[in-house]
Amino acid sequence: MRLPVDPPSPVAPRRVLVTGAEGVIGTVLRERLGDAYDLRCLTRAPAAFPSHAADIADLDAIRPAFVGVEAVVHLAGTPHVSSSWEEVLHSNIVGTRNVLEAAREAGVGRVVLASSNHAVGTYEIESAPAIYALDDQRVVDERAEVRPDSDYGVSKVFMEAMGRMYADRFGMRVVCLRIGSVLPDDDPTGPAIRATAGWMPWLTDDDRRARLRATWLSQRDCAELIRCALEADVRFAIAYGVSDNPRRFWGLEGARALGFVPQDRAPG
Amino acid sequence: MRLPVDPPSPVAPRRVLVTGAEGVIGTVLRERLGDAYDLRCLTRAPAAFPSHAADIADLDAIRPAFVGVEAVVHLAGTPHVSSSWEEVLHSNIVGTRNVLEAAREAGVGRVVLASSNHAVGTYEIESAPAIYALDDQRVVDERAEVRPDSDYGVSKVFMEAMGRMYADRFGMRVVCLRIGSVLPDDDPTGPAIRATAGWMPWLTDDDRRARLRATWLSQRDCAELIRCALEADVRFAIAYGVSDNPRRFWGLEGARALGFVPQDRAPG
Repeated sequence: MRLPVDPPSPVAPRRVLVTGAEGVIGTVLRERLGDAYDLRCLTRAPAAFPSHAADIADLDAIRPAFVGVEAVVHLAGTPHVSSSWEEVLHSNIVGTRNVLEAAREAGVGRVVLASSNHAVGTYEIESAPAIYALDDQRVVDERAEVRPDSDYGVSKVFMEAMGRMYADRFGMRVVCLRIGSVLPDDDPTGPAIRATAGWMPWLTDDDRRARLRATWLSQRDCAELIRCALEADVRFAIAYGVSDNPRRFWGLEGARALGFVPQDRAPG
Repeated sequence: MRLPVDPPSPVAPRRVLVTGAEGVIGTVLRERLGDAYDLRCLTRAPAAFPSHAADIADLDAIRPAFVGVEAVVHLAGTPHVSSSWEEVLHSNIVGTRNVLEAAREAGVGRVVLASSNHAVGTYEIESAPAIYALDDQRVVDERAEVRPDSDYGVSKVFMEAMGRMYADRFGMRVVCLRIGSVLPDDDPTGPAIRATAGWMPWLTDDDRRARLRATWLSQRDCAELIRCALEADVRFAIAYGVSDNPRRFWGLEGARALGFVPQDRAPG
């Protein structure tokens, strides 16, 4: 064999490093997975909770955080579709490669990467707002050809490809999650501006409200999906993270293959 | 319409900028397409032929070369599968984004990108050397899920995704060519060391000779494929560049869709 063999059935990790632990999803994990795992945190600046503070684009500075952990959940990076190329390059491209490389160097066997629907966002742009309607049957899933909608979206294609390379070449387990709309107040009926501010400017406020109900991932479902990704017996996978919303237009097959069963459902 | 409409049927470009014009393929184009097009050259250092010398990673420095051209053939970047991440980041990731952005700013309607089989090189690693045999029927084509084999391979996935984004979002015509083995002396039976030095170290010299006969793209076929990519009526495409070799294991369907008909054939 010239490629690594599949690793033995995984033992659930105990010590888990969360990068971007200060963000919306990082906060969800700290609140909801702190009992299941011994969470270690990496943040960009010193935080109000115990953390290793370092710029994700600085490999030397982040390295110490990877020592002794069994898995990494990589959430650091800009989460904004309208981010500048310079920010995407620094935080998402260099940052993601650094996380995979630091994990490999430290012998970390498993990495969960926060990818995004924007890796294939052009399908939605072509179809919005009709695709948000309750009776629209179109589904985009992880098998769709990549069609990123932005520099940010391209950085997520890069992330998934780099993750695949580390899985194939170094025998790491890598799961890429295209995470939907996780909200600080967990309310999919909240202010519509959240969903698509500055992006798809032709959408009305009603369209934006419909989108948020389609793409919502409850905090409970988010934590459970990441728990599944940390324990699934797969070498590499791409899956969508979305609650079982009536307006949902992303496929859940990949997430179900990880063992995920959504518990929440936005209103129609 | 929220996305650009398909551009009208293309007029064949006249003024064509070649980046990396000093390289092996750049030299082939200067020798073989100089009559068909008014070629402009971009090189990293001052060259023995007329060229604009600039580092492809410096957007400000390369911008002037894009003014007034109708198409770009982007060959600049490291061509080595074993290149360091730093070199890949500088020359291939930042470089390719700069080329697409400079083309967009200058209103250039068409870009041909030199991609690589290494975007999916893991299929070959899994199957080599058996896949080089004359009676092996396996084919990898542009529809295969990406499985890059290296940082270099990941940079080519990035290139294809960034090209797709510029095509979808800005209405440019972008063709990505996964170019095979183009040789300075055009001889697919030459020293085997060329093919896979430092990569797949378990291959024997005979294996390497077989690979070179499988992956050869003659200089004549290379120039013709790039001519087809410069004139095809497509918004976006990915295609392999390989001559009609008996040991060939890359599909030619994508290239044929561009109008390419290989004229050459390596010995079996």
